[in-house]
Amino acid sequence: MIEKYPSELLQNAVEAIGSLPGVGSRSALRLAMHLLNQPKENVHHFTDAINRLADEVQYCPECMMISDNGLCSICSDRHRDHRTICVVENVRDVMSIENTGQYRGVYHVLGGIISPIAGIGPSDLTIRQLVERLQRLKEYPDDMEVILALSGDVEGETTAFYIYRQIASLGVKVSALARGLGFGDDLEYADALTLGRSLVNRQPFKP
Amino acid sequence: MIEKYPSELLQNAVEAIGSLPGVGSRSALRLAMHLLNQPKENVHHFTDAINRLADEVQYCPECMMISDNGLCSICSDRHRDHRTICVVENVRDVMSIENTGQYRGVYHVLGGIISPIAGIGPSDLTIRQLVERLQRLKEYPDDMEVILALSGDVEGETTAFYIYRQIASLGVKVSALARGLGFGDDLEYADALTLGRSLVNRQPFKP
Repeated sequence: MIEKYPSELLQNAVEAIGSLPGVGSRSALRLAMHLLNQPKENVHHFTDAINRLADEVQYCPECMMISDNGLCSICSDRHRDHRTICVVENVRDVMSIENTGQYRGVYHVLGGIISPIAGIGPSDLTIRQLVERLQRLKEYPDDMEVILALSGDVEGETTAFYIYRQIASLGVKVSALARGLGFGDDLEYADALTLGRSLVNRQPFKP
Repeated sequence: MIEKYPSELLQNAVEAIGSLPGVGSRSALRLAMHLLNQPKENVHHFTDAINRLADEVQYCPECMMISDNGLCSICSDRHRDHRTICVVENVRDVMSIENTGQYRGVYHVLGGIISPIAGIGPSDLTIRQLVERLQRLKEYPDDMEVILALSGDVEGETTAFYIYRQIASLGVKVSALARGLGFGDDLEYADALTLGRSLVNRQPFKP
């Protein structure tokens, strides 16, 4: 632990950087010194990019994903399957799923996960917007599907259950991500819960 | 590797954060999302602290350490031993040595290390200021000492050698940090060079 800084300016910068999750005081000092060794213009470019994100961020009115102007590129893509909505916690999850190249539907970004410990309740998320969106889509055919693609932890399960209760009455099909051993996973090192679920949810062998 | 961002604002912020040393694109996205989830005032507080450090930083005219106004707290401390100057690469090293509680002398901060690969030559460091400082101190007694407390890598050794050549003629005692096995280090896991030097520089046993 670093105790005494030779300069208040340095201390303030280190404390600001150290407030980021996963950045300790040693790393923060290293990063502050790195920024100090840069030309001022680079530092201003760095802080401007962050300020602009915070000040000017906008969200897609349909799926609530970050979007620079109006409908996001996915919601405005007519070639995507708009009958399948994948509900995710945040934009990082959207990017992870997009990277798989396996999904052609659209998304709904919750903006977080229900967590009593962190003080995040259902009203802090975009669950109401999801319900309204589904209600607006009544003219869609029967094969409307909502995929709850949330984390496998307690918060994720709680959130999935809450959303399910909100939308079950709307008559849409609700599914969840398959859980089981990862591809390439070693049986020996799998945790008991995952292995157990993998057994219970076993699937027909496709040779 | 993340390929496609849903927003240019987000992408710019992630690229700015990802330009920091040791921060990959995944961490940068995580940090950008963290900042986005903060109140705007917190983000501005964060960027202001960094901007102020870059814009208003000053250096101690004596030892070249970061200092908010004039002489730093160490150089202006009359109880420190001003006949012993410890030459270090940067302010982080000053803080590390101060944390040991074993040093009562003063410092000279080089502001970097000679590194042809990084394009840093002697004139980019405060070596000239060190020579001038020693020349100013001629009235000091014979026990004037300069400790070269630089890294043990090639750059550190090169810099130490260069400084030695600049100040050897001034008649000051020049010393370097002891190198050897760390306290608690296991012989088995020590690298050959360190172990070899530890043997060559063996010291009288003090029971």
